[in-house]
Amino acid sequence: QKSTETSVDAIIEGLLSGDRTMLSRAITLIESNASRHQKPSEEMLQRLLPYSGDSIRIGITGVPGAGKSTFIESFGLLLCHKGHRVAVLAVDPSSTLHGGSILGDKTRMERLANHPNAFIRPSPSGGTLGGVHRKTRETIIACEAAGYDILLIETVGVGQSEVVVKSMVDFFMLLVLTGAGDELQGMKKGVMELADAVIINKADGGNLELAKKTQKEYKQILHFLQPTTKGWTTPALTCSALYEEGIDQVWEMIQRYMKMTKDSGLLLEKRKMQAKEWLYAQVKEQLESAFFGNEKVEKLVPGIEKKVMNEEMPVAKASRLLFDAFYGK
Amino acid sequence: QKSTETSVDAIIEGLLSGDRTMLSRAITLIESNASRHQKPSEEMLQRLLPYSGDSIRIGITGVPGAGKSTFIESFGLLLCHKGHRVAVLAVDPSSTLHGGSILGDKTRMERLANHPNAFIRPSPSGGTLGGVHRKTRETIIACEAAGYDILLIETVGVGQSEVVVKSMVDFFMLLVLTGAGDELQGMKKGVMELADAVIINKADGGNLELAKKTQKEYKQILHFLQPTTKGWTTPALTCSALYEEGIDQVWEMIQRYMKMTKDSGLLLEKRKMQAKEWLYAQVKEQLESAFFGNEKVEKLVPGIEKKVMNEEMPVAKASRLLFDAFYGK
Repeated sequence: QKSTETSVDAIIEGLLSGDRTMLSRAITLIESNASRHQKPSEEMLQRLLPYSGDSIRIGITGVPGAGKSTFIESFGLLLCHKGHRVAVLAVDPSSTLHGGSILGDKTRMERLANHPNAFIRPSPSGGTLGGVHRKTRETIIACEAAGYDILLIETVGVGQSEVVVKSMVDFFMLLVLTGAGDELQGMKKGVMELADAVIINKADGGNLELAKKTQKEYKQILHFLQPTTKGWTTPALTCSALYEEGIDQVWEMIQRYMKMTKDSGLLLEKRKMQAKEWLYAQVKEQLESAFFGNEKVEKLVPGIEKKVMNEEMPVAKASRLLFDAFYGK
Repeated sequence: QKSTETSVDAIIEGLLSGDRTMLSRAITLIESNASRHQKPSEEMLQRLLPYSGDSIRIGITGVPGAGKSTFIESFGLLLCHKGHRVAVLAVDPSSTLHGGSILGDKTRMERLANHPNAFIRPSPSGGTLGGVHRKTRETIIACEAAGYDILLIETVGVGQSEVVVKSMVDFFMLLVLTGAGDELQGMKKGVMELADAVIINKADGGNLELAKKTQKEYKQILHFLQPTTKGWTTPALTCSALYEEGIDQVWEMIQRYMKMTKDSGLLLEKRKMQAKEWLYAQVKEQLESAFFGNEKVEKLVPGIEKKVMNEEMPVAKASRLLFDAFYGK
């Protein structure tokens, strides 16, 4: 008991003084599923909370190949050069699906990783919520307490992860490719409607003209969609992360958004709602794990599911049978 | 016990012979929350299942004022005249919000209600799932077993109800107004992306030109969106429900869709997936009711929620405290 206390003290002290190793250790504690880590982790977070919140939380999504890594590196370096401290949290629910993790390898963003103002944390494995680690929100708190004033949370545009990431950031960007024509690259439904900005990357060289055309198309669509934030017109910007062009404009846009939503009180309101939603999402996830992880329920599920799918059993009955099993009736 | 058995037998016999009163009674039994009705209801549904499924399930949504009632009446009458038997299930999560129920009053669709081939069931109160009654899916089974081969499930475009209705129909239509310009009537995010067709109503008289313009705008947007069904291009049609113009084309389109998805096997696949999703949605809803309805949890929630929203308590701790209360720790 005593040694854990000391350890949490040491982590907090180190973290608050900007020690990266201690921040890493804090995140490892946060992500731990060991029950003996639960209380120390809670205590640590409770004590870090007063130091958190004063940051800009930015979500970045895009299909594989849209150039997220290159963009984050360019963008992150720009911010570091301006004196900001940048933490990159990468979320990758699909590394096995798409052949190659979008992260894990810090070599992916070597220049950024080596900058003293940057901290890159690869995607953790373990319990997930819509493809996002259950504890990513807590990790944000730790990074902020460690003095990182800009959080970049990256997600690959697969499954539910964008919705979850959107629910923990102030600003959500969609990075897209040029030249995919009208199909919009088979983008997942609804992703564009989550975006506070669409960034058309690789607007360089022979691709520039196509980028401008793509930008025009996105503007056309965005014109018809409701902006995610009241009073904010979702822009479509072009940039070249590779040649570091247009990145400054992206940062200017985000600052404009932050000022607007801070002044109007929308930012505070949004963060409060996000915290609340996160609480309920956590509780629901835990409830479902308990239910579907129940041995008796687990045994029944395949047969019942099959009968329901073949319209051989009404859903009401199927549901009742599962609950009977759960409650040991 | 014995009398209930007999009663279920009588309901089933009457229902299968097309007796509307017995269908109404069956639905009342399905919707009942009384625990003594649970088993008879289950038994009844189990016995009705073999007679269900052979229908076209159509969902219809649209903002208040889009003319859903008039459309459903015109459309329903057309189908009745063609010899179909049409059941209308109305879902209204927002009657108190928008001043006036979209249903309840059968006078709303008097001509259709009086047609011998039609059956109109107003929205039930009671437990809901995203604004849709927990048992609407079971009600569909009863209607189908009673010989209704076309189901029209109406929902007002508010909250989560469209998503839930979409999850129980074969074809989902969005009814829109003309003349709302580029704003698309402040439509809820993502609703258009659920639609298998967009129907621009009130395309008549002085409104006709505007309707054509609106149609063009919708076509432009739909062009950019992914269709909800592989191989299906989501059309934008105009009609005048009031003057009964263009309604036939809507029916032709739905038949085309049904043939396509039946031939390809997509329809069967979709229905199987819907049944499965419905099962999980039901289980989750019941789990959450049990948890948040727990007396000790209920007492804790307001205080904990407030602390989480004010960033005074980490979510992980808040969640743990609620579970401790639930498990009586």
